[in-house]
Amino acid sequence: MQFPKGLITIDKNSQVPVYLQIANGIISHIRQGVLKPSIALPSSRLLAADLKVHRKTVVAAYDELYAQSWVDVYPRKGIFVAKNLPDVSPRKITTGMQPYAYPEKAFFEVPDDKTYISGPFLKKPEHNLEFNDGFPDIRLAPVELLVREYRRFATYHFTSKYLMYGPEQGSENLRTELARFFGETRGLQVKPENILITKGVQMALYLIAKTLLTKNDTVIAGDPGYNCPNEVFEQAGAKLALVPVDEHGINVSEIEAICKKKKVKLVYVIPHHHSPTTVTLSADRRMQLLELARKYKFAIVEDDYDYDFHYASSPILPLASVDHYGSVIYVGSFSKTIAPGIRIGFMIAPQNLITQATRFRRLIDRQGEQLLEEAMANLLKNGDIGRHLKKANKTYHERRDLLCRLLKEKLDGYISFKIPDGGFAVWVEYLNGLKPQEVAAKAATMGLTISNGTDYFHDPAHPNDGIRMGFASLNLKEMEQAVEILARAVKALS
Amino acid sequence: MQFPKGLITIDKNSQVPVYLQIANGIISHIRQGVLKPSIALPSSRLLAADLKVHRKTVVAAYDELYAQSWVDVYPRKGIFVAKNLPDVSPRKITTGMQPYAYPEKAFFEVPDDKTYISGPFLKKPEHNLEFNDGFPDIRLAPVELLVREYRRFATYHFTSKYLMYGPEQGSENLRTELARFFGETRGLQVKPENILITKGVQMALYLIAKTLLTKNDTVIAGDPGYNCPNEVFEQAGAKLALVPVDEHGINVSEIEAICKKKKVKLVYVIPHHHSPTTVTLSADRRMQLLELARKYKFAIVEDDYDYDFHYASSPILPLASVDHYGSVIYVGSFSKTIAPGIRIGFMIAPQNLITQATRFRRLIDRQGEQLLEEAMANLLKNGDIGRHLKKANKTYHERRDLLCRLLKEKLDGYISFKIPDGGFAVWVEYLNGLKPQEVAAKAATMGLTISNGTDYFHDPAHPNDGIRMGFASLNLKEMEQAVEILARAVKALS
Repeated sequence: MQFPKGLITIDKNSQVPVYLQIANGIISHIRQGVLKPSIALPSSRLLAADLKVHRKTVVAAYDELYAQSWVDVYPRKGIFVAKNLPDVSPRKITTGMQPYAYPEKAFFEVPDDKTYISGPFLKKPEHNLEFNDGFPDIRLAPVELLVREYRRFATYHFTSKYLMYGPEQGSENLRTELARFFGETRGLQVKPENILITKGVQMALYLIAKTLLTKNDTVIAGDPGYNCPNEVFEQAGAKLALVPVDEHGINVSEIEAICKKKKVKLVYVIPHHHSPTTVTLSADRRMQLLELARKYKFAIVEDDYDYDFHYASSPILPLASVDHYGSVIYVGSFSKTIAPGIRIGFMIAPQNLITQATRFRRLIDRQGEQLLEEAMANLLKNGDIGRHLKKANKTYHERRDLLCRLLKEKLDGYISFKIPDGGFAVWVEYLNGLKPQEVAAKAATMGLTISNGTDYFHDPAHPNDGIRMGFASLNLKEMEQAVEILARAVKALS
Repeated sequence: MQFPKGLITIDKNSQVPVYLQIANGIISHIRQGVLKPSIALPSSRLLAADLKVHRKTVVAAYDELYAQSWVDVYPRKGIFVAKNLPDVSPRKITTGMQPYAYPEKAFFEVPDDKTYISGPFLKKPEHNLEFNDGFPDIRLAPVELLVREYRRFATYHFTSKYLMYGPEQGSENLRTELARFFGETRGLQVKPENILITKGVQMALYLIAKTLLTKNDTVIAGDPGYNCPNEVFEQAGAKLALVPVDEHGINVSEIEAICKKKKVKLVYVIPHHHSPTTVTLSADRRMQLLELARKYKFAIVEDDYDYDFHYASSPILPLASVDHYGSVIYVGSFSKTIAPGIRIGFMIAPQNLITQATRFRRLIDRQGEQLLEEAMANLLKNGDIGRHLKKANKTYHERRDLLCRLLKEKLDGYISFKIPDGGFAVWVEYLNGLKPQEVAAKAATMGLTISNGTDYFHDPAHPNDGIRMGFASLNLKEMEQAVEILARAVKALS
């Protein structure tokens, strides 16, 4: 039998390269038995003429077939469908035995550990308008910058070294660039050795908890506060001691009162824009807190998740920048700078803790994504991150002002709020006995998703009139619609 | 003052886009005080003529300056250097207070937990030739395929949804493609719900240990064996019970003997190409092991890290494919398929364990890299992974044969080995009292890095004459040189 003319068709509009279309066409005919073992394929010149493509394209297709073992090549004779065709179908252990589908439940016992079960998994996004918890606008994410860096990896001669196992502590280039960036933006004097690259703030908190805490250790956190770290500390066996947060930040006198009664291992604070209330920890409380850390030898975990977004005046330097003794562990991420789905976070701490945390990290997942880390290092180095931050700050500044103006116009008398200095959300308190849960339920029926206020205090039953309204991910038109719906919901309930 | 001519220079060979060069040039002159606040910039038409660029390029530069707040725009008047220049320099907490560098040691106590300290961190690569533990050849990694997928992200309209928080269990597309891939290649009947995407096998093992094990639980592993899982199980508090591995795989009768004496929680096996010895678990032992799991209700962790690389005949189906009851947890990764630095692994298990492991994973790092997971899903879907595997199998098959031929030619009488059916390494045993440590030390002085044989048994002092010789990452020339050096080293010691 001869290789029939017109057997292969090419779609010039397809995204699949032409050489691969040719190779795939031939493979498909071999698979279907049209082209049988040992049949000669036409010379590349002949097939090229037949298909009206360049001869090199057919050569590439034949190379592909050879690489995949579909053809045999005999010098001076030609190319033939392989005598022994590649066969990837797996062998059965015992003939007659059928594979079984996985059962619902394991046959062994799976412990139902409640300490790490809180709340449902991420829900699919609704198509409502939404005042979220304070996320950046994904539509503004500089994904094209990231992709540009990835494109370079295809050609850079050094890419291959980033494909092998890499440093457990994270890319040296990225840690070097971060040390410089933190120096310029935060007055933070760190060396690359003080930095551990993590997957988001979450992993930094997990590693801190696992390396520092043992069962029944006391950890102090603010209430209202951010729930994720509390979960991590509790799963590590710690007991939480909650301290109120007022308009000057976490109550430092109450921290001292607890220290006088028992050994405190760790204090978790968000001094810059506290979540959920957006308050900034006052300068005198900052100094008191550092002094307490010295006196009682506890670790301060400073979560500075949105330092780079500040609209009112220059941001206040982190605690970590003025810590004389080595009491502060500084954590943050690029979730707000790039996007929450791009998982680059960091933990800055004295060298001996970084070493322990790095060893623990190796147990969990060995290392981070080197290509992503190298891409981030480049973006920091060539100034792209700085430029993006300027643009994004401008946009979010405008959106903050717009939300605050609209709230004033449409909801005056129903709510109270302070304009936040930075970040991604306004903390709004309902007046006149309006309940966040009722407003949220009403607004949901009108096409607006908004917080029902239940996630802020450790005790879900704690009285609370406040909610976070994220403004960053709504543009002008969406924001006007969203406030309009909220105003209608609130007025319907009043 | 007027905007001076010739102030901006453009480098057409630079990688920085021209519009950004113009913008950066103007910013630099503003920063240096050459262009003072309120100075008018020339019209885009004039500046374009001056710089011999298209007017749109200057418009883009001005847009950039405006976005970064360096200029004010007054309709019908023009563009001026901003009156209030952006200022990002951070404010000090207290005047006169200087930032301090991080001290070496934390002021708080950092526990020195030995359970997760074993072995040094990754060393910088030496420039020796190397028989490694069995890694793929990074030079063959299909990084261009991955980059191609990333390029698409820059344009795909749906990319943005992968930039937000995503599913904790991993990309639904990837889990769907994996379910299909495992069905086709392994006869494994799983649904996407049975799959959890992890960062390599390492994270799968960590999650299994954390969700299933409590203090003093008994875990069985083979000896010699792979050290990483043992570390993870021990850190979770388990006690290891070691069972010998012979030419038919792990000794299942010894597993039964232990089960008769105490409750066994988990048995870790590498049935396909056991690490380090490359032996395959025999069919009868497989059936016995599954039967024991049913009888004693332990979990089997089946690590199938190199299933896709098989040269001798069709690979044997995994235990997971013939497990009737739900006793087998199947783990693997694409470290060998793409590259060790590309961190995509998986864990396949009954639904109730997957749910618990997913909840725990959320505590650690919330989720994986969605863009990477989507890229992998596409590569599986469009057949690129299958094509790459065929090519890679062919290359590694040739390299295995080459190494075995060279060992036979150059080292006959000094070593013994069996040709492995698949995988990336040959298990070689020295004869005549040659010691792996002495050979490794000698070879190192001659430019060859090779295992010293100390990492295979749980007790480093256990007598051992064997080493793993990874053949996959050496090409023809390198392999010949490497065996040549080894032969000289061995003969010098004999």
